[in-house]
Amino acid sequence: MSDQRVWTAALLVIGDEILSGRTEDKNIAQVARWLNSQGIRLQEVRVVPDVEAAIVAAINALRPAFDYVITTGGIGPTHDDITVDSIAAAFGVPVITDPGARAILEDYYRERGVPVTEARLRMARVPEGAELIPNPTSGAPGVKMGNVYILAGVPNIAAAMLRGLEGKLQGGRPMTSVTVSAHAAESEVAALLKQVQDEHPGVSVGSYPFYRDRGFGADFVVRSEDGPLAQRCADELRSRLQQAGVELVDNR
Amino acid sequence: MSDQRVWTAALLVIGDEILSGRTEDKNIAQVARWLNSQGIRLQEVRVVPDVEAAIVAAINALRPAFDYVITTGGIGPTHDDITVDSIAAAFGVPVITDPGARAILEDYYRERGVPVTEARLRMARVPEGAELIPNPTSGAPGVKMGNVYILAGVPNIAAAMLRGLEGKLQGGRPMTSVTVSAHAAESEVAALLKQVQDEHPGVSVGSYPFYRDRGFGADFVVRSEDGPLAQRCADELRSRLQQAGVELVDNR
Repeated sequence: MSDQRVWTAALLVIGDEILSGRTEDKNIAQVARWLNSQGIRLQEVRVVPDVEAAIVAAINALRPAFDYVITTGGIGPTHDDITVDSIAAAFGVPVITDPGARAILEDYYRERGVPVTEARLRMARVPEGAELIPNPTSGAPGVKMGNVYILAGVPNIAAAMLRGLEGKLQGGRPMTSVTVSAHAAESEVAALLKQVQDEHPGVSVGSYPFYRDRGFGADFVVRSEDGPLAQRCADELRSRLQQAGVELVDNR
Repeated sequence: MSDQRVWTAALLVIGDEILSGRTEDKNIAQVARWLNSQGIRLQEVRVVPDVEAAIVAAINALRPAFDYVITTGGIGPTHDDITVDSIAAAFGVPVITDPGARAILEDYYRERGVPVTEARLRMARVPEGAELIPNPTSGAPGVKMGNVYILAGVPNIAAAMLRGLEGKLQGGRPMTSVTVSAHAAESEVAALLKQVQDEHPGVSVGSYPFYRDRGFGADFVVRSEDGPLAQRCADELRSRLQQAGVELVDNR
């Protein structure tokens, strides 16, 4: 089991609006959960501004290091949407207008009685050699270039593009996580947690303090690609915590 | 004005819980806004797992590239809290127990009648040569090592540590941003936006589509370190949009 191939991904979030604090990112968590459901592990995220050199540097650092790179943001029709040009530059290829993407956009706007303008057709521009990712929501398709998947920044459009990618990326077994919550200070159970983790190779145990209505405590998250093992380890942790006199929170 | 020194920062978010999608990050936006209020521009964010090699690589890539590096996460008392050890490794120094931090923690726990355990004193460990960042909330101080500022991952504790840093980092003028919202498709006004930006050097204009109760549209965000210039540019944009027959949304 432990020698099974692990599939990895990085996410590159492109956008001044995230770095300025104007917009709270929603894509990291949704992409992370989606990748996990596909048996792929998100191992790094970077957020860079709408600056070509920054995007090129990040893409060329990430694409050889991970199986997949997903990008969000910067694929709309305005002058600050430079993701496609930057990724083409990273791959050293020109940008072309994709006839398939152009046809999708023309159909989409025609059905809605909206004029097809030059700005709208910017969204049919792709790096030469790219493939399209269908987008059931807004017409403009996502783009796959090598192992880089270019998605929209608007979270519901990115979600639609992820649905379009469902099952198309090769992955391994999804990660199982089981949470054990307790009204305990992390520092009181630190040794116990480490011991339980050490006794279950192939499992990681994370500890996340909380402050909720009914007092403080911590969530202990047991993660493994081996679902039954994660469950056994969580059961063991639960019983050790009880033996130590810790009040558990029922969240099953 | 344009030759004024720009102060830059990167944020390193450390934590498996963000990469697994279990926890939605709240620190990127709050650190971004805080830096902006200090006249410092957040130019890159990375999220890495609780893995020493990943933290060391990110720290050593970011600290020479930006004026400041802020980290969040991984400074609690449990075995998965390895930020301090990793940053010491990045700087090539040992980890020591800081007498000042130890005294702060001992006082904090004594006042609350909580036993001072070895696990709790883990939070007094710092890279040799580090300084402390006061934390009015939870006792455990943040840590400054070189140009790296080590904060907690729990958002309200990170916020308290940022308040402790208020005014202590040298910065420039804060960025002013003025938003003009309109019921317009981005693609219809793309040329107009670019033109207005080009006519106002020192200003950037971003475009962010929205889908709200009363229909779709976009927020056009005018940003500059020169506040009056940002305002003039936004006024000009507003009047050009009206001339073009676009319905503005009043958000002043």
